[in-house]
Amino acid sequence: MSVAYLNGSYLPLDEVRISPLDRGFLFADGIYEVAAVLDGKLVDSASHLARLERSTAAIGIALPLTLDEIEAAQKELVARNTLTEGLVYLQITRGADTTRDFIAPAGLQPTLFMFVQVKNFVDMPAAKTGIAVATMPDLRWARRDIKSVGLLAQAMAKQAAKDAGAQEAWMTEEGGIVTEGASSTAFIVTEEGIITRPYSQSVLAGCTGSALTALAQESGLAVIRRAFTVQEALAASEAFITSASTFCLPVVKIDGQPVGDGTPGPVATRLRDLYIAFARATGV
Amino acid sequence: MSVAYLNGSYLPLDEVRISPLDRGFLFADGIYEVAAVLDGKLVDSASHLARLERSTAAIGIALPLTLDEIEAAQKELVARNTLTEGLVYLQITRGADTTRDFIAPAGLQPTLFMFVQVKNFVDMPAAKTGIAVATMPDLRWARRDIKSVGLLAQAMAKQAAKDAGAQEAWMTEEGGIVTEGASSTAFIVTEEGIITRPYSQSVLAGCTGSALTALAQESGLAVIRRAFTVQEALAASEAFITSASTFCLPVVKIDGQPVGDGTPGPVATRLRDLYIAFARATGV
Repeated sequence: MSVAYLNGSYLPLDEVRISPLDRGFLFADGIYEVAAVLDGKLVDSASHLARLERSTAAIGIALPLTLDEIEAAQKELVARNTLTEGLVYLQITRGADTTRDFIAPAGLQPTLFMFVQVKNFVDMPAAKTGIAVATMPDLRWARRDIKSVGLLAQAMAKQAAKDAGAQEAWMTEEGGIVTEGASSTAFIVTEEGIITRPYSQSVLAGCTGSALTALAQESGLAVIRRAFTVQEALAASEAFITSASTFCLPVVKIDGQPVGDGTPGPVATRLRDLYIAFARATGV
Repeated sequence: MSVAYLNGSYLPLDEVRISPLDRGFLFADGIYEVAAVLDGKLVDSASHLARLERSTAAIGIALPLTLDEIEAAQKELVARNTLTEGLVYLQITRGADTTRDFIAPAGLQPTLFMFVQVKNFVDMPAAKTGIAVATMPDLRWARRDIKSVGLLAQAMAKQAAKDAGAQEAWMTEEGGIVTEGASSTAFIVTEEGIITRPYSQSVLAGCTGSALTALAQESGLAVIRRAFTVQEALAASEAFITSASTFCLPVVKIDGQPVGDGTPGPVATRLRDLYIAFARATGV
């Protein structure tokens, strides 16, 4: 059993307990981050911590530790688990009250919970086969830039995608415009270049997607930040997703239709390699 | 300290503990209900249990007990707390996994948590003074008919309302159309009659609002189910809210402007009395 972290203590994951009066449980009043670990080091950590700070500030949760202290605790957790490849999941909630009121009393002590998952990034079969996505209406709230634990719509979308034989859901707005994946950022590749949606309150600013976009531009690829439709994606030469838990995966099928020739394309494959090199070079 | 219920056990509320791997905590993957208790009896229980069944079915959580067994546990909890007036809060989540995956594995044991709060319904000062509401954009997801614990948008709205000196938030869509209150159903009274929004995926089907609507109709008042705007509400003779935790409260101010003459109106006052009589007559 792996070691988890709760409010300053390190203990076996299966022994960690919280109060059901925690506002994370009663109101989804919390924020999370997932950071990859490669070669025992945190990948793109500064970017995840900056987003954690933005998300918690957006809903008025004061961080119980400085970002440096949080990163130190993440590293300690990685070390205690002798984790070489996987994920560190981190969740901060507004804390537990003695009762249940929509208005949180002042002075609650936030809950900080972290645990790790073993995951293989470098040898990920889906990187070679590509994945299928299913599209469905985006049911989420209007502040998708806040990485809140209110993930029921995403969980429902992922389940519906699985039921349709796909590994990810692409959520769509009116006009068939893709917002993003249920747990990833969506990209297509056309003659214009690499196309992905600009950041706004309608989508999450993806840490992995942002880093990968910079890597693409550094290697001479054009990146156009604009919305795209499912129809455009089906006509694209390639499509792919990015996330901290997958890095970059080619999308070879959308709603049962092949993308390009139906196999992983050269841009996604190259970007994945670039991201792994970046992760190795910059891990902390 | 009051007695709470967790998965078949009755224990002191401050000793109840759950795993942070519970999907209620990680994904807001859960449903809740709040039922009033008056004279030691559950108010409008069948209606709340029916909605619980609809909500859990909508997200594919199998109830761990029959509705009769749930009601029996609620009654037992009321008895153990010798609660005469207050609330029974009930939450069912999909349960705790050993890891964190958007796709829940089959066979998880749902978590059923209940606790009580003492609350005075009959002598509620706000019933005499009325309340102020503040309007703000409705940021919630598209399936508001499902009573999920993903309540961050509502908590943010309630906090913003409080900051504006109001006791409830009325959430609005394009065109200034009122969807509903952050934790209540919204009504106005005009020459047409009592106006409230029809049920759809955009609003929660309020148990208290439905019962009160029936009581109004039985007593000869016209109820029109249609959307209304903030502007209409400001021009109305009365406005009010309903919820299990307030029954019925007059709204005397919207965004700082008086409704009608700025005091509780006769329709809201009468409906509140009718509801209390109904609650007393039908409690189980």
